Amino acid sequence: MRAYDIIARKRDGFSHSKEELAFLIDGYVQGKIGDEQMAAWLMAVYFQGMNNEETALLTHLMEHSGDTLNLSAIRGIVVDKHSTGGVGDKTTLVVAPLVAAAGIPLAKLSGRGLGFTGGTIDKLEAIDGFQTNLTPEQFTEQVNQIGLAIAGQTANLVPADKKIYALRDLTATVESIPLIASSIMSKKLASGADRIVLDVKFGSGAFMEKRQQAEVLARTMVQIGQELGRQTVAVLSSMEEPLGYAVGNSLEVKEAMDTLQGHGPADFTELCLILSGQMLYLGEVAATPEEGYTLAKQCLQEGRGYDKFLQMVQAQKGSLAHGLPQAQHRHVVCAEQSGIVQAIQAKEIGHCSMLLGAGRECKGAAIDLTAGIMLHKKTGDTVQAGEALATLHYNDAYKHRAEEVAQKLQHAYTIETETKEKTPLVWKII
Amino acid sequence: MRAYDIIARKRDGFSHSKEELAFLIDGYVQGKIGDEQMAAWLMAVYFQGMNNEETALLTHLMEHSGDTLNLSAIRGIVVDKHSTGGVGDKTTLVVAPLVAAAGIPLAKLSGRGLGFTGGTIDKLEAIDGFQTNLTPEQFTEQVNQIGLAIAGQTANLVPADKKIYALRDLTATVESIPLIASSIMSKKLASGADRIVLDVKFGSGAFMEKRQQAEVLARTMVQIGQELGRQTVAVLSSMEEPLGYAVGNSLEVKEAMDTLQGHGPADFTELCLILSGQMLYLGEVAATPEEGYTLAKQCLQEGRGYDKFLQMVQAQKGSLAHGLPQAQHRHVVCAEQSGIVQAIQAKEIGHCSMLLGAGRECKGAAIDLTAGIMLHKKTGDTVQAGEALATLHYNDAYKHRAEEVAQKLQHAYTIETETKEKTPLVWKII
Repeated sequence: MRAYDIIARKRDGFSHSKEELAFLIDGYVQGKIGDEQMAAWLMAVYFQGMNNEETALLTHLMEHSGDTLNLSAIRGIVVDKHSTGGVGDKTTLVVAPLVAAAGIPLAKLSGRGLGFTGGTIDKLEAIDGFQTNLTPEQFTEQVNQIGLAIAGQTANLVPADKKIYALRDLTATVESIPLIASSIMSKKLASGADRIVLDVKFGSGAFMEKRQQAEVLARTMVQIGQELGRQTVAVLSSMEEPLGYAVGNSLEVKEAMDTLQGHGPADFTELCLILSGQMLYLGEVAATPEEGYTLAKQCLQEGRGYDKFLQMVQAQKGSLAHGLPQAQHRHVVCAEQSGIVQAIQAKEIGHCSMLLGAGRECKGAAIDLTAGIMLHKKTGDTVQAGEALATLHYNDAYKHRAEEVAQKLQHAYTIETETKEKTPLVWKII
Repeated sequence: MRAYDIIARKRDGFSHSKEELAFLIDGYVQGKIGDEQMAAWLMAVYFQGMNNEETALLTHLMEHSGDTLNLSAIRGIVVDKHSTGGVGDKTTLVVAPLVAAAGIPLAKLSGRGLGFTGGTIDKLEAIDGFQTNLTPEQFTEQVNQIGLAIAGQTANLVPADKKIYALRDLTATVESIPLIASSIMSKKLASGADRIVLDVKFGSGAFMEKRQQAEVLARTMVQIGQELGRQTVAVLSSMEEPLGYAVGNSLEVKEAMDTLQGHGPADFTELCLILSGQMLYLGEVAATPEEGYTLAKQCLQEGRGYDKFLQMVQAQKGSLAHGLPQAQHRHVVCAEQSGIVQAIQAKEIGHCSMLLGAGRECKGAAIDLTAGIMLHKKTGDTVQAGEALATLHYNDAYKHRAEEVAQKLQHAYTIETETKEKTPLVWKII
């Protein structure tokens, strides 16, 4: 078998056999097949696609390209949740404690962010002293003791994805559904998940801007789960505007805690309950997703999710004794005209937040955990000229950018006189 | 400007600007852009193509990526000829002396072959003592003295093509019309040609099997010539069966010499006269291609082409005193049934010839200049069972393959009882 022939087959629209994919992926991870051949194959996949069987095979090969997490020491069914990401996405901080409180042991590996704001691990580190580097033993023990742990990834999980993703990022082959789907799913599977709830975002702040594309991605991932025997549900939710009001690490932790105490933004709370309901259903704690939703709502109302969150903070050496850290400066951006908010470009808000230091412009960069943006108006809200649209939070190092960011933020809002019906956050569940 | 964006633009079907192509090609030749990005771009070009303007720009950039030959020391218009190659293609050995005899100074750089049989340089080296390594001064001087020189390429011509072609060969991106066209044309232009006659082959033994594809390639190259101000004519000719009867270096030189003496195969002679006529027209020695054809025929009949060939052999230190070298063994392959030859798979014959040592299985390999195949029957010929179809010529080192090759050769012939009208060798001139 030769890599050349595998590339030519995909180029010509044929489907790959298991042997071909194994030869390619194993050979690439082992360095026997070079970047140039893999790059050509990736571009051929971009144009010709892969069928469900090929995509599942690719996922399986990637999953097993390095270590896989053995969570058998954790009692019960391991349910995981993954979001394709967006601006102000702090759902994990709410959903994980809620489902843990409702009885599903949750061993969650999360990552750091790139662009926009931080990842879940960055956000948690906004809490004074919070430890995200747990050994596998600490991780498992904590889950068995309090039912919840969220830690950074340390093992050599899915090296094939790391290598292929870096290459896709150089060769303009990121935007391919089978490649995105196999990348996400291989990481979830290698992390030991038995069942998976996916939060697939669409809209201006999402990786997939078009709803139809997001749906294809969601269906592809659900199909991969089925092919590989891991039950998977996908919730398609809107990222047309930022999720909730807070964008920025510390600010988002605050909003997540508010939500767990029952006074979070209504639409964000609803999304968290829907995702939790699906997880409780997959974890066999609830007979139906609807029953799961009701159970999650109960946990929220009784403050049990919030208690679980505090338990996790304590177990991971975090302290909220002095509240959450705050930025030095605030700058209120006011509306220049009266009307109704028609749209807020989520991507632009994410970019503003990054410019204030809340996100990474490049991999490995430091981020300012206190910086960010608090929105005061969202789509459908009425606003008067001179009324506050949002507040920028930033520190001295980013002071010189405040004016520029304020301008950008103004442009991210579309305000007109016509009425605007708010579209529901969750569009479809697959 | 970033290579990533250039790849993405081609991937998305946009046309490149001059600046984009220059950034990409110069960056790649200088090693600033890696193989992986170039490979992705090449595959994107495979799928999205390039328009005539882009292809001409690419050709121009490649032409100037290294040295270009200055043939201004040669008197007159420099006309060059290029064949896309095939099995038994010895046209240069006939056409070059003919047009030189008719008054066009011919400074021809040729290459070595890969697969099938050798290239023109390999073939000439079958002549005892023939020197193909000439210094630029020797080369020019010889052309000015006798009007003809054929030498190997020594200068650093078109390094962009060398690097890109090697990458295409690894990444299954060879079969792309704009890439093939720019590769061929950049080499011709860098070799100093003012005007070019292309012999574009189609059929089972050609690089382009389909006639329509070959026509698109021919039109693309003619267009490049026009865009870059070098008059170009393309002759589309059939490579369904081997050209002439001889396949193999020494055997082909013999057939070329026979042709120059007026007793070559009729169809091969005709193709040579047509190509020569076009060259004489482009070189402004003849007022029309038809007049050029007549002039070339005259040179052939009067033996002036043959004399020119002998002059070149002498000038380049070759000797025909002992004739051409011959292989040790002969094996006659006979027809197993009676009928009319319907087809001869040229590619199979080429492969047979390579197996006997006449071609290179990989780059840089040695070849056996005396080995090859003499066909006795061609398409349309009547054959009796037991009658000779072809003779294999080979030396001891390849003796063990003779039986296998004889079998293969049998299979390359299709013999049936129905009549078969021979299709003309030249299909179209563009």
